[in-house]
Amino acid sequence: MSLSNIKAIAFDADDTLWVNETFFRKAEEEFCELVSDYLPKEEANALLFEVEMQNLKLYGYGIKPFTLSLIEAAIKVSKGSMDIALIEKLIDKGKQMLHEPVELLEGIEETLEYLSKKYRLVMATKGDLLDQERKLIKSGLEKYFHHIEIVSDKTEKQYHKLIKHLDIKEDEFLMVGNSLKSDVLPVLNIGAHAFHIPFHTTWVHETITKEISHPNFRSFTKAIELLHVL
Amino acid sequence: MSLSNIKAIAFDADDTLWVNETFFRKAEEEFCELVSDYLPKEEANALLFEVEMQNLKLYGYGIKPFTLSLIEAAIKVSKGSMDIALIEKLIDKGKQMLHEPVELLEGIEETLEYLSKKYRLVMATKGDLLDQERKLIKSGLEKYFHHIEIVSDKTEKQYHKLIKHLDIKEDEFLMVGNSLKSDVLPVLNIGAHAFHIPFHTTWVHETITKEISHPNFRSFTKAIELLHVL
Repeated sequence: MSLSNIKAIAFDADDTLWVNETFFRKAEEEFCELVSDYLPKEEANALLFEVEMQNLKLYGYGIKPFTLSLIEAAIKVSKGSMDIALIEKLIDKGKQMLHEPVELLEGIEETLEYLSKKYRLVMATKGDLLDQERKLIKSGLEKYFHHIEIVSDKTEKQYHKLIKHLDIKEDEFLMVGNSLKSDVLPVLNIGAHAFHIPFHTTWVHETITKEISHPNFRSFTKAIELLHVL
Repeated sequence: MSLSNIKAIAFDADDTLWVNETFFRKAEEEFCELVSDYLPKEEANALLFEVEMQNLKLYGYGIKPFTLSLIEAAIKVSKGSMDIALIEKLIDKGKQMLHEPVELLEGIEETLEYLSKKYRLVMATKGDLLDQERKLIKSGLEKYFHHIEIVSDKTEKQYHKLIKHLDIKEDEFLMVGNSLKSDVLPVLNIGAHAFHIPFHTTWVHETITKEISHPNFRSFTKAIELLHVL
């Protein structure tokens, strides 16, 4: 693997730059608590996940789709007998999630500050445009990024477009992120480089269990370790 | 006004390329019908608009924010006594809107086909990334656009970014759209060109009553008329 070719580095946002999945896990737990009169926790959680997966293609990723799925799941759980006050609580829960403060992961700011002097940095994330822009502004990290790219899904096709847009070759592109499924595999498949920094919590939908061994791949435990090789 | 400078033309999408507002008006009417036991039509509509405006900054534009506001408004209208089956109907309504076929406005395809040979065309829209991408693919218009730009809101700052991104000067940029507020005024304010093609229905939030007289501005009734001057 020759890292000397790298011209641009794209960072995933949620759970790579800042905490995100933790808020969804917390919301799921609160949901299970709220519907506990109807269904045991495990079953309620499974039903919510099922509703989310059914809606994913239509709604996409983010807090608004999640809120709509929470409401739909609550109605299903209760077989239509749910108290309307609970629906109101779920709407408020979604709004509260959109208001959460941004909590940077350890060492992110120093890492970006250093790398932004040597490389063109972009933030590449899927999900909700408005919400991701808001988090980027709250984070104070905007100044380190050349621009941000928000895609509807992280597929090989979308990575090809991003690399073309950056006007570089595949071998000159490095993606850094916490999801093997979204940030690593499609990137390696098109001949670019990918670094994995796992977050302690991963959404079931993003989970991949297989071991990756690839000349363009490396795994780290913290962002600051990137500076040993870049 | 010298149109000979123009290098890139950005087209708004909803109600400029295809029908959109009509679906929202229809959904609003259905909402008023569903809650008619609680509130007369005019008042229900006003309450829905109020909820939408309160949520706009947090939720942004699009069908998912609209669906969440429908649910919130229904709960408010009924003072919490709404039947849960109605909430289910509102969720289904939102999904149905996301599934609507794309209906092109008159003469759009011929206009884009002709202009794409002379200028760099981009689609510039606010709202939901996934939904706008899906409509673009359904529309069959993707091939005429160099790329698409989806912004969280159409402000002078966002137009500056778009023009910088296109690597052209303000005077070389033309925006075409149906909203004076979003597609015309901020564009004229930064020294670029703007063409207005009104759609028969305009959302109250986008309505501007003032007459515009500006050297960089023209108004048309149909897209095909653009070919008389470009």
